[in-house]
Order: sequence, then structure tokens, then C-alpha cells
Amino acid sequence: MKIKLKSVSGSVVAARGFRASGVFCDIKRLGTGKGSEKGRKRDLALIVSDVPAAVAGMFTTNQVCAAPVKVCVPRVRKGSAQAIVVNSGNANACTGQQGLRDAGEMARFTERALALPRGSALVGSTGRIGVALPMDQVRAGIIEAAVELGDTVRHADQAAEAILTSDTRPKQAAVEFRLGGKTVRLGGICKGAGMIQPGMSATGRRPAASVLHATMLCFITTDAAIAPRPLQTALEHAVARSFNRITVDGDMSTNDTVLVLANGLAKNPLLRTAGGAGFAAFQAALDQVCLELARMIVRDGEGVSRFVTVRLEGARSAAEADAAARAVANSALVKTSWHGGDPNWGRIMDALGYSPAKVIEEKVDIGYSAPGSRKILWSLKHGQPTRVSFRDLCAAVAPREFDLHIRLNLGRSSALLYAADLTEAYVDFNKGDVSNPSALGG
Amino acid sequence: MKIKLKSVSGSVVAARGFRASGVFCDIKRLGTGKGSEKGRKRDLALIVSDVPAAVAGMFTTNQVCAAPVKVCVPRVRKGSAQAIVVNSGNANACTGQQGLRDAGEMARFTERALALPRGSALVGSTGRIGVALPMDQVRAGIIEAAVELGDTVRHADQAAEAILTSDTRPKQAAVEFRLGGKTVRLGGICKGAGMIQPGMSATGRRPAASVLHATMLCFITTDAAIAPRPLQTALEHAVARSFNRITVDGDMSTNDTVLVLANGLAKNPLLRTAGGAGFAAFQAALDQVCLELARMIVRDGEGVSRFVTVRLEGARSAAEADAAARAVANSALVKTSWHGGDPNWGRIMDALGYSPAKVIEEKVDIGYSAPGSRKILWSLKHGQPTRVSFRDLCAAVAPREFDLHIRLNLGRSSALLYAADLTEAYVDFNKGDVSNPSALGG
Repeated sequence: MKIKLKSVSGSVVAARGFRASGVFCDIKRLGTGKGSEKGRKRDLALIVSDVPAAVAGMFTTNQVCAAPVKVCVPRVRKGSAQAIVVNSGNANACTGQQGLRDAGEMARFTERALALPRGSALVGSTGRIGVALPMDQVRAGIIEAAVELGDTVRHADQAAEAILTSDTRPKQAAVEFRLGGKTVRLGGICKGAGMIQPGMSATGRRPAASVLHATMLCFITTDAAIAPRPLQTALEHAVARSFNRITVDGDMSTNDTVLVLANGLAKNPLLRTAGGAGFAAFQAALDQVCLELARMIVRDGEGVSRFVTVRLEGARSAAEADAAARAVANSALVKTSWHGGDPNWGRIMDALGYSPAKVIEEKVDIGYSAPGSRKILWSLKHGQPTRVSFRDLCAAVAPREFDLHIRLNLGRSSALLYAADLTEAYVDFNKGDVSNPSALGG
Repeated sequence: MKIKLKSVSGSVVAARGFRASGVFCDIKRLGTGKGSEKGRKRDLALIVSDVPAAVAGMFTTNQVCAAPVKVCVPRVRKGSAQAIVVNSGNANACTGQQGLRDAGEMARFTERALALPRGSALVGSTGRIGVALPMDQVRAGIIEAAVELGDTVRHADQAAEAILTSDTRPKQAAVEFRLGGKTVRLGGICKGAGMIQPGMSATGRRPAASVLHATMLCFITTDAAIAPRPLQTALEHAVARSFNRITVDGDMSTNDTVLVLANGLAKNPLLRTAGGAGFAAFQAALDQVCLELARMIVRDGEGVSRFVTVRLEGARSAAEADAAARAVANSALVKTSWHGGDPNWGRIMDALGYSPAKVIEEKVDIGYSAPGSRKILWSLKHGQPTRVSFRDLCAAVAPREFDLHIRLNLGRSSALLYAADLTEAYVDFNKGDVSNPSALGG
């Protein structure tokens, strides 16, 4: 079945019955200055549904998880919510009991400002770890954001800007599709940049076989009518194929969060279970928006100059495929060779060899293609260099985006990762400036 | 029992009956030019015992292991050897059957040049992966090195230079101690710089619970009389506390090798078993030389500007202690913060949280001290920031060397790692220069 998805503008306000806003409230306390004055990035976003919505969420599996995650997990489990409030500039992580009180207060203050029922607001935070939230700023920001709410593209743009930290550009996507005879929309915003290797689960607890690994935040809205359980099922499927397949620096954040609100205002027949044509259409839409947003995070990763899709095939198991692909994608030596445009298969073999996956040198194939192309230039076959010239291999890894194909030829399992190079700019950015603590990153 | 160890010069020729040399034979085929002309780093080393010696070895557990490792493992298992030949500039890794033949030929050619019995020479290689060894250069180098053999400090210096790749300086150590009424010496040379996170075992096979993780090479000689089995036991003990505790970039090499030759010319009563006062003295000497050399590798790591000793305590098990310490020591974000002199405990907590070790945020203590000092400046106690000022914490992480103390407070297991920061210089070095393939690193 071919599902037709049409890209539309407006991201989180593309669907009916959603409003959003993004304001500057000086979370980093850089100094006085109200509103979104020139040069002051917005730092508090609000997304609100006109009516109660079904909700689903995925959260970091980091054992050290931020207060907003701890507040959201039980609220999402209830299956219904109506608003999301998010600040950037402060992660509210490692902030102890005060942090939990602050995250709860941030939610309750939002509920009061919007006259919503208690427990209907969800919270997100991103930024520096270990600093208490400046609650006066947060409260002032929520009041202003509530006043500013609207459903135009400009409102979505402002919300998308407000959740950014070291990102260089906002990340938005939305699609329109047909579902049960109705036109439905689904759109989202996200942020990434550093501390990016998400490994999220629905509860924040680690699945037994999970591979662990951003601050990335993603907020999705849809006017589809779908019950909380199939919504959660659909989100887990989409995240497993998008956000959990990206890595910038291999560091998994304390704050990773993906939330979806589905308010049903499209009036399609309610999707009660995770099956059937309607659900498949919804899943396709959610998959596409998540994948588009996830890839934007890698492309805009801190200091990133190359976007590499690692396509690993022929592992003995899915876990081994994933482990082998992650060993390559997170190797400092492989990543610096990508930065240098060096088709260095030796470092790739080395990383495969120390990965927990079974690898037999004499069976490994390594090659390159243009993004998504099956026309592969093989540099190595059965562990032996091919006759392809060094010059041609250099040309294959010179573009800003390329695919790396690895075949272990030991089994039938495969893994795909969206990865990035390691650059001087990444180091320079993250070494920070201790003479200016307020400018230090997460 | 206090064992008195006196530092002496001469590294691999400090002990009786050992000669060494280091020559330039143009392994990288940079062009014509004989001998060790100015500006041409020596690239082939020879170490020879006057008499057959007991041998022990530890090798990379990388599944993709280099031909010299494959040649050495069975030779070391025989327990006796007399010479070690090592080239730099080419790892002879991922070179297939040709590589194995070349490594075997390198050993046999050495045996013939020195008139040694077949099977008595061991081989080592380091450098670029995936390029066939230039055997004409290797043979010419072995002949010249055999001619140049000698037992002066200059000879040791030249051998120490010849095994280097991206290292900025040679690494040598030797000690003298009393054993069974005799004066015994033990000394070694090593190289490191990049692809440094060794995880070696005696067979090159992974122990079930091993944590996996340089090209580092280390060659040790001693005139102690010790049987091969206790020698192997002593080496495994020493490596576990030295080379297997270092990490520069988290990449485990295909070539890691540590070899010890013990020729018995000190005439102490033969150490037949791994026990007793004599063995303890030998162990102490081997431990000290290995630790001294291992720490030199981290200090001279590619682009390294800070040397950090990670002291993790209070884990539930030794494996968890190791995993937690490695998560911190290999985190790109933690390493860049060290480079910046930023006492960023948030990134440390984040890395602990995504490590496979059990961590409870509210129990974690994080602090800093001068190297080896127990006077710890705590930045975090029980997961909460202390009253120590940001300025004081910056001062604690400003020196080129400091200790990071982490207490999980969950159990009695501890781990110690010698780690390094991540700098722009590391990236710049490893991105290489594809316009000059012969200059590309491993």
C-alpha cells in the first residue's frame, strides 16, 4: 500500500486546534531586556491543543535523567495531555529535589496560565546541567508565551527557535495525508546539536537488550483521532527508526524526550488499535516526520561537516549489527578521517574488530555510494583492497553527504545509523570558555 | 615488603646480554636516502639477546588483528625467543595472506641475519593499516640493523626512536633491583600516540568479561632468570595495571603488543613459580616499568594537552567500575571540557548515567586533586553541588595533570584509568592529508 504524504508548512500548528509560541525570558540570565529583542534567542516555547489530546512519549534511558523527564513519564502514562512547555538554556538536570519541584511548578504554572486541568501540561528542558532553573524568568516567560499563542507559520517558527541551544537553525517538518476519509496533518519541531546518541524507551527504563546512547527534544502534534496505546506503539516504531538511529558524538543525554499530542480534531474514525490501513497511514506519516527531523539533527550537529549514513549488513544478529555500526560511527579515528575526506578503511576495520559483534576480517566488504544509491564503489571486498583507485575513493567521500556500506557477510541482520564527522569546530565549541560560565554548554 | 627499585639508563640494553639498534630503511617509501639522514626518523628496530631467553607476551583482543600478532602468538607460547624486529610506518594489518607471509619472512630474515635458530625471532609492526609491507626495505633495514647492534645508551635511544609513529618523543624506562642475592635489571621501550585503548590478553582472544578497547607496542628485556610461565603471569599482572588502564581516544588497535625477554644472565636462582619474595621483587620491577611507560603514552597522546587520572570508587563490581570509568574517560564531551579547563560535572554525571554500570544520581561524589594527592576538592557530594566556588574548581582542573575522583557509593569496587583530553590538534592530526597519502596515519 502506497501512502501519499504531502509536505506542508507550520510544523506544530499545521494540524487543526494547535497553537504555539516562542518567547525570550532570559533563562540564562544574561541581563535585562524584555521580549525577543534583536540578538536574544527565544528560550521558552509553548504548544497547546484546544482540546484534551491523546499523548505518547519516549524518554532517555540515561540513569541520570533530568527533572522534566521524571515529571513527564507518569503524566504520559495517563494517556492524555493538552500542553507542552519547554525552556532552553538550562537542562534542569542534576538539580535534585529543587529541580523536581521546579519542573512540577513549571507544569502547574502553565496549567494555571492556560486554565487547563491539573496534570495536563508536559515539560521539557535543555541546556546546561546542574544549575537550578531561574523560576522568576520561567514564570514570566510562560505568561508571555500564553499571551503570544497563535497558529500561524510565524508562531511555529518562534516555538522552533525557542527550543534550540547550540543548533544553528530551527528544525521543523509536517505532512498532510488521508485517513478514514478525512484530511489529517502531523507535524513537529526538534532540537539537537551535541550530546547526541539517543537511546530512548517509553518508560525511561532500559530495555534488556537496548543499545545505549543526545540532548534532543522533539514535539509532535497531529489532529488524527488515535487512542493513547496505538499512538505509543506508533511512536516507539518511529523513534526506533529515526532518533534512536542517529549519533553525533556518542554521548546520550539526560534529557532526551519525544512527545506526541493527537487531539482528534480531524474527525477520522478513532484508531483504537495498532493495525489496519488507517494505522498504517498514520504510522507512515509519523515515521516520515520523525526521520526528517532526526536527519536534520545530525546535519546540524555541533561542528559537523559531513553527514554519513552507515549501512551495515550481514551481521549475525540485530544487536551485533547495531553494535558494529555504532563502533564505526562513534570511533574518533573514523570520524576524523571523514572530516579529512580520507577513505580510510583500515580504521573502519579496526573499529569493527573491537566492536562486540562477531567480525571475520576476510569476509568484510566496505564501500561508498551517493546518499540512497545502490551504485556502490567498493574499497574492500572479502577483507582485500579492490582495484578502485585512491583518487576515486577520495572522490566518493568528498561530498558533504555519502553512504558507507559495510557487509560483514556472516548473517542476515542489518543496521542503519545516521552519523557525523568529528571536527576541530566540535572541540572548539565544547571546550567552552570558563571565563564566561554563563556561556558554557550542557 | 619494601622492594628497592633504582632507575637506570639504557632501557632495553640496561640488562646484561642485550643489544639493540634502530635504523632508517624508508618503510613509507618517501624516497631515496640511506641510513638515518637528518629529518628521516628511524623506522626499524632490532633487540637481541646473546642467549635464548624466556618470553612472555600480551596482544590486542581486536578481532581484526595484524599479521605480526598472528605470527607472535604461537611463538610466544613456546616460551623461548631471542630477538625482536619491529618496523614503524606500516602496521601490516588487513594485508591478508601476503601480510602473514611478509611477517613470517621478516622474522626468518632476522633469524638468518643473526644466525639464530628458526622460530626464535618475534615481530612487531605499527603504522598505516592495509598496505603491504615493502619487503625490500624491510630486508635492507634488518641487515643494517644487525650490523649496527650495540649495548650503549645511544643504541637504546635509536631503537626507541625507530618504533615511534606519531609520538613526539621516545619512551624508555629501566630499573635495577636485587633478586636472589644478585643485581638484576629490567627495562623497556614503547610507543603510542593514537588508536590507544588497549585491551590485551595473553592469547589475543577475549576473556569473557574483558572490557574492550591503541597501537601501542612495548618491548621489555631483563637479565632475570625466570621461567616462561611465571614470566607470563607477571606480565599479565603488570599489563592489567598499566597498558590496559590507559585510553587516549577509545580506539583499540589491531597491533597492540607487549613482549618481554628474560635471558637469565643475572644468574639469580631461577624463578620457577609465581610466588615468593623473589617473584614479588620481579613483579614490582615489571609493574613499575610498565606503568611508567604506559603513562608516557597518555602524556604523549596525539594532541593531548591534559593528563587525567580517573579514580572511580564505590561501584558494585569491578566490571561496573571499569565500565563507568571508561564511559567518563572516553566521552567526547567530558574530554573537550578537560581541554577547555572546564570543571563540568554535568557531563561527567551524564556519562556515568549512560554507562552500563549502576549509578544513582543522589549518591555520586565528584572531586579533583593534584596527581596522587588525597586532598580532594569536591565539586559534587551526594549528587548535589558543594559550596566550592567555580573559580576554585577551575583552578583544580587548570594544571596539565590532575586526578578526577568519582565515588558511586554503591559498593566496594574501584577502577583507575589514565586518560587524556580531546583537542583540535587531535582532530587536525587525524583528519590527515589525502593529497599526500603516504603521510596518512594508521
